[in-house]
Amino acid sequence: MALLDQVLGKIDANLDASLERLFKLISIKSVSTDPAFKGDCAQAAAWVAGELKGLGFEASVHPTEGHAMVVANATAARPDAPHFLFYGHYDVQPPDPLDLWETPPFEPRLADTPTGKQIIGRGVADDKGQLMTFIEALRAFKETGTGELPCRVTILLEGEEETGSPSLPGFLEKHKAELKADLALVCDTGMWDRATPAITTMLRGLVLEEVTIHGADRDLHSGMFGGPAINPIRVLSRIIADLHDDQGRVMLPGFYDGVAELPDEIAAQWRNLPFSEAAFLGDVGLSVPAGEQGRSALEMLWSRPTCDVNGINGGYTAKGSKTVLPAAASAKFSFRLVGEQDPEKIAAAFRDFVRARLPADCEAEFLSHGASSALQLPFSSDALTRARAALQDEWGKEPVLAGCGGSIPIVGSFKHDLGMDTLMIGFGLEDDRIHSPNEKYDLSSFHKGTRSWARVLSALAA
Amino acid sequence: MALLDQVLGKIDANLDASLERLFKLISIKSVSTDPAFKGDCAQAAAWVAGELKGLGFEASVHPTEGHAMVVANATAARPDAPHFLFYGHYDVQPPDPLDLWETPPFEPRLADTPTGKQIIGRGVADDKGQLMTFIEALRAFKETGTGELPCRVTILLEGEEETGSPSLPGFLEKHKAELKADLALVCDTGMWDRATPAITTMLRGLVLEEVTIHGADRDLHSGMFGGPAINPIRVLSRIIADLHDDQGRVMLPGFYDGVAELPDEIAAQWRNLPFSEAAFLGDVGLSVPAGEQGRSALEMLWSRPTCDVNGINGGYTAKGSKTVLPAAASAKFSFRLVGEQDPEKIAAAFRDFVRARLPADCEAEFLSHGASSALQLPFSSDALTRARAALQDEWGKEPVLAGCGGSIPIVGSFKHDLGMDTLMIGFGLEDDRIHSPNEKYDLSSFHKGTRSWARVLSALAA
Repeated sequence: MALLDQVLGKIDANLDASLERLFKLISIKSVSTDPAFKGDCAQAAAWVAGELKGLGFEASVHPTEGHAMVVANATAARPDAPHFLFYGHYDVQPPDPLDLWETPPFEPRLADTPTGKQIIGRGVADDKGQLMTFIEALRAFKETGTGELPCRVTILLEGEEETGSPSLPGFLEKHKAELKADLALVCDTGMWDRATPAITTMLRGLVLEEVTIHGADRDLHSGMFGGPAINPIRVLSRIIADLHDDQGRVMLPGFYDGVAELPDEIAAQWRNLPFSEAAFLGDVGLSVPAGEQGRSALEMLWSRPTCDVNGINGGYTAKGSKTVLPAAASAKFSFRLVGEQDPEKIAAAFRDFVRARLPADCEAEFLSHGASSALQLPFSSDALTRARAALQDEWGKEPVLAGCGGSIPIVGSFKHDLGMDTLMIGFGLEDDRIHSPNEKYDLSSFHKGTRSWARVLSALAA
Repeated sequence: MALLDQVLGKIDANLDASLERLFKLISIKSVSTDPAFKGDCAQAAAWVAGELKGLGFEASVHPTEGHAMVVANATAARPDAPHFLFYGHYDVQPPDPLDLWETPPFEPRLADTPTGKQIIGRGVADDKGQLMTFIEALRAFKETGTGELPCRVTILLEGEEETGSPSLPGFLEKHKAELKADLALVCDTGMWDRATPAITTMLRGLVLEEVTIHGADRDLHSGMFGGPAINPIRVLSRIIADLHDDQGRVMLPGFYDGVAELPDEIAAQWRNLPFSEAAFLGDVGLSVPAGEQGRSALEMLWSRPTCDVNGINGGYTAKGSKTVLPAAASAKFSFRLVGEQDPEKIAAAFRDFVRARLPADCEAEFLSHGASSALQLPFSSDALTRARAALQDEWGKEPVLAGCGGSIPIVGSFKHDLGMDTLMIGFGLEDDRIHSPNEKYDLSSFHKGTRSWARVLSALAA
């Protein structure tokens, strides 16, 4: 029997014991945001470090100004095997409101449901169950054959993810040499659906700009000055209206530089996904897709850059009316970036675009609220090809190569601070209720997730 | 010697006594907004009623829920003489801040200045000095020749002008028969400059509209929905941008219906006025006229309709950034109307204009904050022609036929409730500091203002 098959058999045989370990981790109340749980966080760090030591890792707990980092290292069977950094977090969100939980949040249990067994407990999907899929996969390798791992593995587990990871940048900087690997692996994302795995290969970048248009040096009476005196709200509205053409394309010169069309294969995959735009929009009271004409909603959210106004303000906005011609008006903009778009060039193009539309007598004041580039694991990446095949073997379905609308800051840090791409594979489902009462993780996510990591590690090492 | 010359001579001879009477009225602390001065307001009403009785008027003081109305009637020499309603107000603004007054606000005095003698005291320009120009002109008629007035005169003096005239509409309704005259005369406006009289013949109307554009049924994450989900700020901005063309013209269909070009004579008068657009705009930090191309600032302010956005609000507007795609965005608009523009049609055209630009999935919610038509004393009015000649005789300069940017609600009430046009002649100057410390009224405004009314009444009666 091939080694991988033995490992998968071990995972199946270990399932009850694996669950027991996961339950133990869930029962530790590692709520990072509440100082009352500082001791619990330390206990969770110590517990996972102990588990990893038990698996033969060199593991250490590093205190920080907040909660501790756990770092563990294990060698591989072959000295030339590739080196992977696995990242996860052992901290969880507060369980409030407690009265909405059907059972206590830190007393995990299995529940039978029409779609299968679910593990219930705070943090089970975010991220304790997910990180344990990886560790239990490592355990199966350790308990099979020669007990060696197919790849060299470094594990980094933090306890501050739910509070914005304040200690992480400094820690990465200090431990660069130890943490730098060939590729990072992160298990904090989701599947496409209960039956279909997904690999998140694209995270959009973000440019946040605020502009204030100044006109007269004070608010004016619109009856005394309206007409001859410029109205900054009108100027700002014109600029916002000009930012898109009637096809929904962003009109900043050079905006689409570095935006590639999807490979045909991926485009075809997305077209064939069972995704209902009607349901997606219907959920929020809408029915007609806006945005770039000729692009699907998934394309727009995963692989196309966008520009949105997040806020606008000027003049009198309380109840009733006031015939004021305001001295200023301001708006906040967010640009989502993809591919090779350069955040600094986008911000500069935006400012030029505004300045080019300023009438005489108006000035623009700019404020940046941050700029980050998009992150993309190249579609041609060898690791991606291997991981896709491994997931297909486990699930019997081609994994979706997904984009992600939200942000995962650690992936940017790995790219920019450690020069490392990230392979994001996770087994969460949309209905996992993360951050909410009765958080759950499907037993199949846990079990097949563990099997998936065994296959992926085996494939990456081959 | 003609009667008018005798009357003018009487005014000159009476000047010191007239001033004494004005000083007496100013010394009565008729601050309408402060209940502490309720007795003073009553005293002011009684005092003017007494003065008018002394001149042979049938005068009465009518209590209201607020401060009293004074109504007085006098017949004319000829029974077929025209009938005029003169309106003024005896109440004043609070004198605060007291420490900025060079002398006590209710102890009027004459001051010598480089531009001539000034009367100093709270309310002297707004409106006690102005209303006394009319009463002192009547006195001169009464004290000359047969002691009869050239016209039938009704006088209405209120004590709530500075608090929004809450009792006035009901009072007008109740006393319609007594107050309805051929024309109303109001002395509460200004001159063009110290040497040039003005008749205000145009008050712009006002349509106040608020619109809220609704998109999704909740605020959305711009990363999760930006693109496919419509952004109400963008929709609203496009509407605002569309409201004007690049020549500054308002694009509502039918907006300019009922807007006449100025008669050549008036246009020429305005062109030749010493009005510096550079100084007008420079005062508020601007330098380039905005608004309708090819129109002067005076034209825009006095005789052209405008559309302004007075406020806009949507999404996140506090410090920093939030990647929200808001459920709604709203804006407040004011339309200034002229000529025969119909406020209801303008409001309806605006709402249609908005609706025509609503993308699928957006709804518009409208709120009206009022609508009033423009008021215009026809340029061809016989009374206007006579008054122009009378003022020219007194000042040696053609009076400016001015528009007014602000609103004078009483003029609308006279038009709509009593069916009466209003001739607005006043002698205030821009530097009168009304509502501010050290309010003043030029002695020449008072003296020549009184002479002006004598000439105007004589002309109107001829």
